[in-house]
Amino acid sequence: MTFAATILTLYPEMFPGPLGHAIAGRALAEGRWSLDAVNIRDFATDRHRTVDDTPAGGGAGMVLRVDILAAALDAQAQGRPVLAMTPRGKPLSQARVRQLAAGPGAIILCGRFEGFDERLFEGRDIEEVSIGDYVLSGGETAALVVLDACVRLLPGVMGAASSGVEESHESGLLEYPHYTRPQEWEGRTIPEVLRSGDHAKIAAWRQRRAEEDTRLRRPDLWERHNGARVNRPLARSDEQE
Amino acid sequence: MTFAATILTLYPEMFPGPLGHAIAGRALAEGRWSLDAVNIRDFATDRHRTVDDTPAGGGAGMVLRVDILAAALDAQAQGRPVLAMTPRGKPLSQARVRQLAAGPGAIILCGRFEGFDERLFEGRDIEEVSIGDYVLSGGETAALVVLDACVRLLPGVMGAASSGVEESHESGLLEYPHYTRPQEWEGRTIPEVLRSGDHAKIAAWRQRRAEEDTRLRRPDLWERHNGARVNRPLARSDEQE
Repeated sequence: MTFAATILTLYPEMFPGPLGHAIAGRALAEGRWSLDAVNIRDFATDRHRTVDDTPAGGGAGMVLRVDILAAALDAQAQGRPVLAMTPRGKPLSQARVRQLAAGPGAIILCGRFEGFDERLFEGRDIEEVSIGDYVLSGGETAALVVLDACVRLLPGVMGAASSGVEESHESGLLEYPHYTRPQEWEGRTIPEVLRSGDHAKIAAWRQRRAEEDTRLRRPDLWERHNGARVNRPLARSDEQE
Repeated sequence: MTFAATILTLYPEMFPGPLGHAIAGRALAEGRWSLDAVNIRDFATDRHRTVDDTPAGGGAGMVLRVDILAAALDAQAQGRPVLAMTPRGKPLSQARVRQLAAGPGAIILCGRFEGFDERLFEGRDIEEVSIGDYVLSGGETAALVVLDACVRLLPGVMGAASSGVEESHESGLLEYPHYTRPQEWEGRTIPEVLRSGDHAKIAAWRQRRAEEDTRLRRPDLWERHNGARVNRPLARSDEQE
């Protein structure tokens, strides 16, 4: 089964963009996923191809019209989750990315201007998704992020060697830090334990660093990981391997 | 002053990508910001242009070499914040975006494979930044998100009409929902208050919806906004305007 992505946007020329290169681009060329960028403007009904109007109640900017958006959406092959990229949405998680990647694909609505007429979310089954707590000029770069996250998980894309199970956010922890040659750089050496050849000791060090770094850098994740409230980040342990 | 972005990447062909279109593309063409995509591979020292090596201690994937990354970084014009896109980083916030946009630009390091040799962050002044709790195939789509968020805030890019101060995450709240014509769609009408012409009442409704939606959708933001712990999301008020 091919993961079928349809993007509804005012800027179809932005796609595949970065996803036409590197592993996502190779996977696209190999047919492991498909990408269809559809111009919302094609569903306008007047000769000026208008897709937006001024906000009810006044204010700056323009709002995307619900009738145009619904027509664009209804014209796509159904049976796939519909995502709308918006800072009002549910934060994207790696768990949701895994679910999406295991499914038939997604229809992704990209907003511009002040966003979507809210009635769209009442009249259609749409998941409002946010990639983070910041504001973009439109949903397009956010859609690229969602697709990048999904595509790398599709069968055959990363290869068996990198299943990604030790990545940050897979276990609810940040990943441990990495090192590689050269052995010494500007007087800094690779931690001794990683050169020990003792696999159990290496695994224990990595687990400890994953926990330690999560606790120090992301007390919010650490708290959730432990299923309990941690009132303050603990100081990094002074222990050395 | 032009906001000068330098991207260090193995895939310079991904840039400007989507940022070559729409408002970011117009601003780039107008010289309101500049973008230089530098290939990390140009700083390799062997004839195979090797930039990575196997992880110390074993494991899947490859790690970007600290000596190559440092050489690539040191060769760039300094005096700008250096960001490395990594899921181990500090979550990007709108406040940090505002700071970056008010500054001289940024150097953004994009990882691939298993990521960077950790010693890079000990030996150079680098801000590790995450755009969200999910895993990408590389830092490039994340860098596009950072730049998109910054560029829209540069002087002259959005225009005076859309200063963005009412956007989600600017006040610590989600933005209120929007509506526009048609007045009725599939039996659904625009909320009466927005058609009242009573600006004070409209402002009050919007503020209440921003608070209500934040509380229901993002109890984490609501808690932070109030500077106090809220133990559970409250039910949406049944009041109607």
